[in-house]
Amino acid sequence: MKAWTLAARPKGMPRTEDFALIEQDLPELAEGQVRVANRWLSVDPYMRGRMNDTKSYVPPFQLGEPMQGGAIGEVIESRAEGIAVGTMVSHMAGWRDEAVLPAAHVQPLPDLAVDPQAFLGQFGMPGMTAYYGLLQVADAKPGDTVFVSAAAGAVGSTVVQIAKAKGMTVIGSAGGPDKGEWVRKLGADAVIDYKAGRSVAEALGEAAPDGIDVYFDNVGGDHLDAALAHARPQARFAICGMIDVYNDAKPTSLKYLARLIGNRVRIQGFIVSDFKDHAGFYRDMGAILGEGRLQREETVFEGLDKTPAAFLALFSGGNTGKMLVKL
Amino acid sequence: MKAWTLAARPKGMPRTEDFALIEQDLPELAEGQVRVANRWLSVDPYMRGRMNDTKSYVPPFQLGEPMQGGAIGEVIESRAEGIAVGTMVSHMAGWRDEAVLPAAHVQPLPDLAVDPQAFLGQFGMPGMTAYYGLLQVADAKPGDTVFVSAAAGAVGSTVVQIAKAKGMTVIGSAGGPDKGEWVRKLGADAVIDYKAGRSVAEALGEAAPDGIDVYFDNVGGDHLDAALAHARPQARFAICGMIDVYNDAKPTSLKYLARLIGNRVRIQGFIVSDFKDHAGFYRDMGAILGEGRLQREETVFEGLDKTPAAFLALFSGGNTGKMLVKL
Repeated sequence: MKAWTLAARPKGMPRTEDFALIEQDLPELAEGQVRVANRWLSVDPYMRGRMNDTKSYVPPFQLGEPMQGGAIGEVIESRAEGIAVGTMVSHMAGWRDEAVLPAAHVQPLPDLAVDPQAFLGQFGMPGMTAYYGLLQVADAKPGDTVFVSAAAGAVGSTVVQIAKAKGMTVIGSAGGPDKGEWVRKLGADAVIDYKAGRSVAEALGEAAPDGIDVYFDNVGGDHLDAALAHARPQARFAICGMIDVYNDAKPTSLKYLARLIGNRVRIQGFIVSDFKDHAGFYRDMGAILGEGRLQREETVFEGLDKTPAAFLALFSGGNTGKMLVKL
Repeated sequence: MKAWTLAARPKGMPRTEDFALIEQDLPELAEGQVRVANRWLSVDPYMRGRMNDTKSYVPPFQLGEPMQGGAIGEVIESRAEGIAVGTMVSHMAGWRDEAVLPAAHVQPLPDLAVDPQAFLGQFGMPGMTAYYGLLQVADAKPGDTVFVSAAAGAVGSTVVQIAKAKGMTVIGSAGGPDKGEWVRKLGADAVIDYKAGRSVAEALGEAAPDGIDVYFDNVGGDHLDAALAHARPQARFAICGMIDVYNDAKPTSLKYLARLIGNRVRIQGFIVSDFKDHAGFYRDMGAILGEGRLQREETVFEGLDKTPAAFLALFSGGNTGKMLVKL
């Protein structure tokens, strides 16, 4: 099998030379194992953290070892009871074309009328991040005004649609007119183009003159500061990403931080893997899908060779919707 | 009566010239009113916010009008049923020597064996801030490691003592060896002298090698950043003050903000007046007092004339314990 590894730990923004394609022989199957041919690979911003050699909530990638990440594959050989050849499964042995895995490490895809690769996006980790972050971490309620950054991304675009399905007012921020138009099509009541030259705080003040109840943060930095500037009393912020600082160590500068006192703002960091029971997620998302109210975009790079390029493009706003690699 | 008013709205750090002493005639008592001769006035950092002409959780002071603030006084004339002359009361008509108030605006002091002025400190608003912030907002539990900034101040010194009484490990930050020594006497397990030249983050890492569960923030800035750097999973931060930014509009620069994601940190702003039921507070604090485990310091300026000077000294670390004006 072929797999991507880290050749060197990136400093700041990763470069193509930090990645290397390696070949490894895979073993014969042992009892209870399956062989999976990957069809779709996920690249996600959080992976940048695993490239550093620092303690975090996920262990660092090891130099020279195959990297990991979400993937969808087809079982092409099985010695595991109940998992037939041909089953489509999701698993974490991404960044490679093939994997041998114990049955406990693969999940057959739930029975929902969506393409398999949707289980890397809206019906996978990014979708769960949107769902649990909005409804549980931020405790967003019908009637709330919700601000979401990176609203054209995999997580943000799902936040927009769940919030609209649940009767909230939504302001989404995205970079450039094309993404903005798509966010509006998803149902957002207002869109901020953060590349248009105005400060996000000023634009948000205009889009939400009465302030915001919820902020869903994928970005940090000036977006977080804008949310602080316009937080209403008892506003809740769910923080799942700060792509702004993944690649450099520059401090975050916040002009409006002290407003969290008077407005009793709650800022809560979270990671999606803390939410283990997914029944409610699949039921709710399946219902929104069934109503025809769920749109999805994908940005697809073709071929295992393109995996690092797909990953790097995440940090330059290169994706609308979920960034994927198709094998 | 004589009262302090704002002569001008301060820009940045207030100056003596921003305040003016005015004289006003007080009316005869109407039915249901009392006349109070003030004995003790409180000056508190939050008052700086009321000097700006901006919307906040408390309305701004009006130019030319007597300022307000916590005060303890003696009823010297009464037309209110149940409030006898000689009763000591707390009320919000501070920054002046005398006031005429409806009975509903004065609270007779609770029956606890402390000096009257303690009801402006440990048994008043600062004490409640410490109590509710630590135990309810930050949900601190026995066994937790608690970091508190401005630990020699009115709020912080009470946080230290409540936390120790409840079986927590406490790290307090204070400026200079004298304050530090006092914080240690209050029971703190470790003390950080933030004026000693090391970064707070580095000092906290040494004082709490396994990290902190709770941060009680009176300061903001580098102390908040240090707490983020050393937060343990599921850490809770209670934010009630950011004296760091009250007098200037400089942004807060945070190097470790993104750590709140992986550690699922909760940052909660609060204001003490949201907590209306004080029975638990007086009971618990009375019990700690009864055990002889409650120490108190006061920094006292004498005379109404000195009120602005007392207030200004809050921002240069001029107080150990509660800053008071004695009339």
